[in-house]
Order: sequence, then structure tokens, then C-alpha cells
Amino acid sequence: MIDFYCVPTSNGQKIAILLNELGLEFNLIKVKRLAGEPPSDEYLKINPVGKYPSIIDFDCENKKIIIFETQAIAQYLTEKTQLLLPNKIEERVNSHIWANVISAGLTPLLGSQYFIEFRAKTNLGEINYWILSEIKRYLKAIDERLEKNIYLAGDTISYCDVMAFPIMFGSIKRLPDSLNNYNHISRWIDVLKNRDSFRRGLEITNF
Amino acid sequence: MIDFYCVPTSNGQKIAILLNELGLEFNLIKVKRLAGEPPSDEYLKINPVGKYPSIIDFDCENKKIIIFETQAIAQYLTEKTQLLLPNKIEERVNSHIWANVISAGLTPLLGSQYFIEFRAKTNLGEINYWILSEIKRYLKAIDERLEKNIYLAGDTISYCDVMAFPIMFGSIKRLPDSLNNYNHISRWIDVLKNRDSFRRGLEITNF
Repeated sequence: MIDFYCVPTSNGQKIAILLNELGLEFNLIKVKRLAGEPPSDEYLKINPVGKYPSIIDFDCENKKIIIFETQAIAQYLTEKTQLLLPNKIEERVNSHIWANVISAGLTPLLGSQYFIEFRAKTNLGEINYWILSEIKRYLKAIDERLEKNIYLAGDTISYCDVMAFPIMFGSIKRLPDSLNNYNHISRWIDVLKNRDSFRRGLEITNF
Repeated sequence: MIDFYCVPTSNGQKIAILLNELGLEFNLIKVKRLAGEPPSDEYLKINPVGKYPSIIDFDCENKKIIIFETQAIAQYLTEKTQLLLPNKIEERVNSHIWANVISAGLTPLLGSQYFIEFRAKTNLGEINYWILSEIKRYLKAIDERLEKNIYLAGDTISYCDVMAFPIMFGSIKRLPDSLNNYNHISRWIDVLKNRDSFRRGLEITNF
């Protein structure tokens, strides 16, 4: 059994979808926090960075394994099950690449953009312009990728689609031009949002 | 042979050190760009996101494999060589975790902090405070990790130390309190900076 510490954010959604895709049993531990509220001392013992999600796998070689960082959780779970990891070297490499484009590139930028536009509320022309233009650079590359490929890694769905979907589906909506200029991302979202595991993953993290 | 497209940044240093650690032959392609200068159309064909570094491996199952995103390059190269990937499951998981703490957490924050403090030059009290406090949260967790472990994954050096070192060694210096409060990070930096592959990796990216 896996304990899944989840907040209702796009990172929580990524792991909720992934657990459903991989057919793993899990115990959902719902964590509700107010914006800016610090993590509890108890949770800091699980994840010293204090971010969500984290998982504890009680069923790994008879040991208890704690994993945090969304991307590291995905690497662990796909390695454990050997699912959503393409066999073809090009697709496996592309799965690593595009998962990291999202987790290390786009996701932190969207986090900054959210904070600066909706919470900081000061005069920020140049910063906001920079962050938005960086976000658009990523979206353009992702849209062109999906013009040439059905999924991000290639012809087959892989864990990087799971890592990419919630932030694309959710946070992009609040950008000035939403997804208007990104037809291929929109097509890919339509395919994935009707997939059982994606729908269920979004549902259980809607609290 | 591997073509290594490198800019003299901490991400370039990560891959330079890693190639040396793994004993791989490579062809260093030095790219000098001015701050804010856009990538060339030619380079965008290699990496559509336009970021550095990228590598092209001409020696993978008789195919040419292009890889970008620093973290994806590291995953590929450690998988290829089966080096710097701990065998013990706890250490392998921790190697994934701490590489991602750095690449998806700390590195983008330090990038924003650099832009806001040194390039945007507007009045940014609240934003800068938020970004600095997020950076300090990461540094505290990393310092506590290195209090209990010799390296980030555990007792043995792994690819996440390589991924972590350049940004810790370089960017932290420009923070208001530098590394003054982080004794264990300082100890770990002192050990790594004298290691041959680390020294050589820093040297070849100093252009």
C-alpha cells in the first residue's frame, strides 16, 4: 500500500493520475492548506522541503520508502512498475526531456507568474513581461512538439504526459491569451481529459 | 562521441562535471551569448526550447540521439553508463529526489532572484522577499540533509551531487547572507571542489 499525501494542486493531480494509470492501490491523505500557510512539523519529518505531494511506499522490498518531489515520485513509480516508460530509446529519452521541460521549466515559471500577478499586487511591468515571455517560449516549443507527435514522448503515452497534463490543463487558463494560440496542446488536452485515469485523478484531487 | 553544446552557466557546469565523472569522451562546443540574446535558428532545431546545455550522442545503438534539459541529460548518461546511480533502493530514490529539489525547486528560484535583483531593477520588495524566503527554505532542507549524510543520496556520491554542486557553489554567493548559515553545505562544497572531475568540469566551462 502507498500513502499519498496530496494537496489539490497541479502537482497533486499529476501523482493522482499517475497512480490511477499504473493501477496502484493507494491511501489518499487529503491536506488542506491556506495560501502561504507553513507545513506542519510532523509533515516536515516526511518532506524536509515542506512541499506536496509526497508518498510513502510500504511495499518496496519489505522496507518503508519515503519519496517527495513530484518528478522523483514519477521516476520511482514508473521504474517500480515498468509502465509508462517507452522501450524505444528515443521515446524514453523524450519522456525524460519533456517531463523536465514541464517540472523544471514551465511549472516554476507559472508559480512565479501566479504569485506576482495574483498575490504580490505591486507594479511589476518588466518582471511580469519577462516571466510571460519565458512561459510563451515553453508553450510554443510544447505546441510544436505536439504538432509532430501524438504524445510528448512520441506515438505512445508515457509518464511525461501525466507530468505535463495538470499544469497545462489548469494554470494556462489564467494567462492573458489562455490556450488560444496553441491548437496542438488543446487537441492533446482533449484526448487526455477523457481518459479514465486522468478523469479519476482530477476528481480525487478536487477537494 | 558526444557533442556537448555548452554555455558557461551552472547548468553547463553540471554536465561538464558529469561527463568527466563518467569518463565519457566528448566534443565541447562553446557557445557564448550575451544576456537576453535569443538562441539561433540552427540551435532551435536541436533544442526547441532554446536553452543550454544540449548533447548529441552519436554512439547509441547506432543512432544519433539528441537530449536537452540538464536533468534529462543526467538521467540519460547515468542510465547509459550505469555509473553514479546507487544500487541501494533508498539511495537511488534519494538521488532522484535531491536532483529534482535542485533542478525544479532551487535552480528556477535562483534564476528569478537573479533577474529580479540584477536585471529588472524596479521596486520589488515583496516579490524579492518571497523568492528569498523560498530559496532559504530549500537551503535549510539541503543543509540538514548534508548534516546527516556525506552526500545528498547517502554515503556514496551520485549524479544528484553533480546536479547540485554548480548552482550551490556559484549562485549562492550572491545571496545577502551567502553560505554563512549553511555549514554542512560548505563542508560538502569543499570536498567536491577538490575532486578531479569537478575541477576539470568547472575549468572547461570557464570561457
